[in-house]
Amino acid sequence: MHASPLRVIVIGGVAGGMSAATRLRRLNETALITVLERGPYVSFANCGLPYHLSGTVGRDDLLLHTPDSLQARFNLDARVHHEALQIDRAARTVTGRQTLTGEPFTLPYDRLILSPGAHAVRPPIPGIERAFPLRTVPDLDRLKAAVDTAGPHVVVIGAGFIGVEAAENLRAAGRHVTLLEAGPQVLPPLDPELAALVHQELDRQGVHVATGAAVTRVTDTHVHLHSGACLPADVVVLAAGVRPSDQLARDAGLDVATGGGILVNDHLQTSDPLIYAVGDAILTRDALDQPAFVPLAWGANRQGRVAADHLMGRPASYGPHPATAIARIFTLTAGSTGLNERQVRAAGLTPTVIHTHPASHAGYYPGAQGLHLKLVFDAATGRIYGAQAVGGDGTDKRLDVLATALHAGVRADDLADLPLAYAPPYGSAKDPVNMLGYVAQNVMDGLTRPLQWHEALSSGRQLIDVRSADEYRRGHLPGAVNIPLDTLREQAPHLAPRVLVYCQVGQRGHTAALLLNQLGVDACTLSGGYLTWQAGQASLTPAAHP
Amino acid sequence: MHASPLRVIVIGGVAGGMSAATRLRRLNETALITVLERGPYVSFANCGLPYHLSGTVGRDDLLLHTPDSLQARFNLDARVHHEALQIDRAARTVTGRQTLTGEPFTLPYDRLILSPGAHAVRPPIPGIERAFPLRTVPDLDRLKAAVDTAGPHVVVIGAGFIGVEAAENLRAAGRHVTLLEAGPQVLPPLDPELAALVHQELDRQGVHVATGAAVTRVTDTHVHLHSGACLPADVVVLAAGVRPSDQLARDAGLDVATGGGILVNDHLQTSDPLIYAVGDAILTRDALDQPAFVPLAWGANRQGRVAADHLMGRPASYGPHPATAIARIFTLTAGSTGLNERQVRAAGLTPTVIHTHPASHAGYYPGAQGLHLKLVFDAATGRIYGAQAVGGDGTDKRLDVLATALHAGVRADDLADLPLAYAPPYGSAKDPVNMLGYVAQNVMDGLTRPLQWHEALSSGRQLIDVRSADEYRRGHLPGAVNIPLDTLREQAPHLAPRVLVYCQVGQRGHTAALLLNQLGVDACTLSGGYLTWQAGQASLTPAAHP
Repeated sequence: MHASPLRVIVIGGVAGGMSAATRLRRLNETALITVLERGPYVSFANCGLPYHLSGTVGRDDLLLHTPDSLQARFNLDARVHHEALQIDRAARTVTGRQTLTGEPFTLPYDRLILSPGAHAVRPPIPGIERAFPLRTVPDLDRLKAAVDTAGPHVVVIGAGFIGVEAAENLRAAGRHVTLLEAGPQVLPPLDPELAALVHQELDRQGVHVATGAAVTRVTDTHVHLHSGACLPADVVVLAAGVRPSDQLARDAGLDVATGGGILVNDHLQTSDPLIYAVGDAILTRDALDQPAFVPLAWGANRQGRVAADHLMGRPASYGPHPATAIARIFTLTAGSTGLNERQVRAAGLTPTVIHTHPASHAGYYPGAQGLHLKLVFDAATGRIYGAQAVGGDGTDKRLDVLATALHAGVRADDLADLPLAYAPPYGSAKDPVNMLGYVAQNVMDGLTRPLQWHEALSSGRQLIDVRSADEYRRGHLPGAVNIPLDTLREQAPHLAPRVLVYCQVGQRGHTAALLLNQLGVDACTLSGGYLTWQAGQASLTPAAHP
Repeated sequence: MHASPLRVIVIGGVAGGMSAATRLRRLNETALITVLERGPYVSFANCGLPYHLSGTVGRDDLLLHTPDSLQARFNLDARVHHEALQIDRAARTVTGRQTLTGEPFTLPYDRLILSPGAHAVRPPIPGIERAFPLRTVPDLDRLKAAVDTAGPHVVVIGAGFIGVEAAENLRAAGRHVTLLEAGPQVLPPLDPELAALVHQELDRQGVHVATGAAVTRVTDTHVHLHSGACLPADVVVLAAGVRPSDQLARDAGLDVATGGGILVNDHLQTSDPLIYAVGDAILTRDALDQPAFVPLAWGANRQGRVAADHLMGRPASYGPHPATAIARIFTLTAGSTGLNERQVRAAGLTPTVIHTHPASHAGYYPGAQGLHLKLVFDAATGRIYGAQAVGGDGTDKRLDVLATALHAGVRADDLADLPLAYAPPYGSAKDPVNMLGYVAQNVMDGLTRPLQWHEALSSGRQLIDVRSADEYRRGHLPGAVNIPLDTLREQAPHLAPRVLVYCQVGQRGHTAALLLNQLGVDACTLSGGYLTWQAGQASLTPAAHP
């Protein structure tokens, strides 16, 4: 007797769902695989949506597959305009309706994979209905049509990754863009002194940014803020975050977190082992093994594969992962992997923090660009909690190396030992990631005691600026005296017993501190030097109201 | 009673030596640190030398420090034109002479650090004396003067990294450049099918490349080859490899490998524990824990630091490392980490090999460039032996991620799990490195059985090209039939029982093979598809004689 073919239904035909469906087919030629997609498109490039606003990416280039192409290549029964409304776990059926015709359907399954994604948060603000989210191709079409026909003033609500990308592309399209953020900074995955660099770049490129900006009302022509300010707004973009689309799972009695998000085990099975869930609708676990909501494409795609493998009886699991995120902001790249300092402190831990500002490659080779790196780790064990990177070319490389090191359990000081490729166009003989390791090692060994930018002025220490007189003249910490490093040996006897030495980026300050400590002066360094202090100060300044 | 200050002599004032000396000073303010440098410059940028030939880097930009600046900043007694000639280990002295005046010197030491570097191999060829090596600033000055005043024909002997970089920069300076390599391929750290891509790029950019080219004689005007060919050569560059400068150590009775290279322990101590050695003069250990001669700047700098730390009583060691090397060749980047296939086989192991040809970032986002990756690993354990990468933007990033993963012991299949940063300008939701992991996993699980490019035509299998008719028409394996993937299901019953399926890069071939295997056809894939096969064929074609 022939076994009947396995019937698998995948709910959601983008990213995680499509990754699962195609992998399933490669593993099982006979399964009956049905993909139900509420919208009109399957397998579109979510992450590319903002780039169509500037015309950088053509609309049709965002559509990677059609139901026909999926049928031809993978023998998938992909049904667009099919919304799943109910899962009957006892009967093992999915009920829904065709969204254009309203026609109901009921389909039986042996295994079910949920990939419903997330939806835009719409804050309870009067008039917010006219704000355009940017999650799907129809969202994009509506927003693009509005931008192309309305006046030039666009207000983007929310300065997370999507908001920042939307702002960048709308600005590139010549619009007057205001980016509003209710929180204290742009790009919340970054800590404030790194986010300040992104804020400054947005300013430089003509995007008006206001942080701490609470929207109270949206009218047909304006956006009103709690401050009383009133911004002309021909178009409003809604990018105030997303929430897991977990209602279907909740209604089916599957375990869902109180705060939202479908709960799954390491094999991505829900509380019903016949039902898997992947992508933006689920909670995963971060590198500290805490529940985490990580609505990013990397995880969705990885999870789709893992779910398909496990469903087909293969060993596969999705354990704790650091989240790694990245965005381009005009000439800058900004990203993070793992936890930021705020998150580590929120978890009750006391991290050690270091900042560096290396060049992307050998300084003597043309085109070197500045990078700004931050490493958050445990000084006792060397465990890396997370890292952040903002800068020019080569920022993404260092972020990926750090993400790899973090995921592989490399200790902070062992970053010095990573055999990274060096030739002058690409890096330095001690790569910026190696240098992070050297600095971490100095801290772990007790050679260096870095103070943070927010501790400098209240440290009670004499402030010594060891840069050149020219550098000092262009700006320095209030009250600092200037003793260039090369003259420090002779000046050491005249210093206060407790000092804080700093330079532009931290390197000369490090040499200075070691020197002074050996000469009997109690010297701390300033993490990241003047550059980090300056960025930190910028993060404290409330953004000018628009 | 005061202990007398520690006397440290560092022989060799570049890279490893300078890294050691400056770290020593940071750790010990009172030590008497003397750096003896035979040449006229300390702390110059070796790796930048070739780039001055094209004017990309200014000569003075290559000089990072002077004895005066080292004195001012680090209180180092750096003596140029000081050649060490003899180490008296019993008396703990170094004897030598000032190379300009001939004046002898004898200096006592408590600890000694050898960083004498490597020297260019000068093959025993009549007339080779007029060939210019490129190891030091004076070498560069002499070569540059010759290039600037002689005729336009330059012959570079040796197509390793230095030879290729010299050829690139001399070509950029408008010279007629011929690059001769006695071995069968350019860039020996790469396997032939990757090196072929570099060879093609050199050709495209107007560098005349001849492999298997044995030079028999150099005259005042020409270079003669064993083949009888005779090349006009106004200038000849010597880049036929380097050898460790270990004579001083050998004369002092320190342990030196028979084939060359000072032997050191994990703390970089020679057989005399008071004497450390670092940089190009030593043997280190590769990722298989075999002795390795790795004359690269990364190791030298790292070793300088480790030696200084250990000398000062800090825990520090330099264990087995994969060597990572990279070069830019016009529009391409090429590099490797760890061992190549040839080296793994030479070590008596049987590696599994996969090739991929991903885009540098999401295909729909403008500017994506082609990458060519190769992973060499053990299919039973997942252990990575090495990886190679050739391609456009983002090649260096993938190489560094792979170097990090290799050094950290990440398994080949676990590359799929690295949480790499994704946004459309930077990568794909499944990054090229993740995809290597997915392919490795398929091989390790037995899902895919890849044949290599050199096995395809002799496999005895029916060759099935599953690309489009257009792609097939532009070139295919001899004897292959064209059955586009989307029509393969219906054609399956008409195939031979044993087939080899391939596509352009391997992805459609993979889908095809899984499909056919489930339909009862014994199907293997072709690793890297048509692109790798084509490059492999190119590597077999003897380069046309110049």
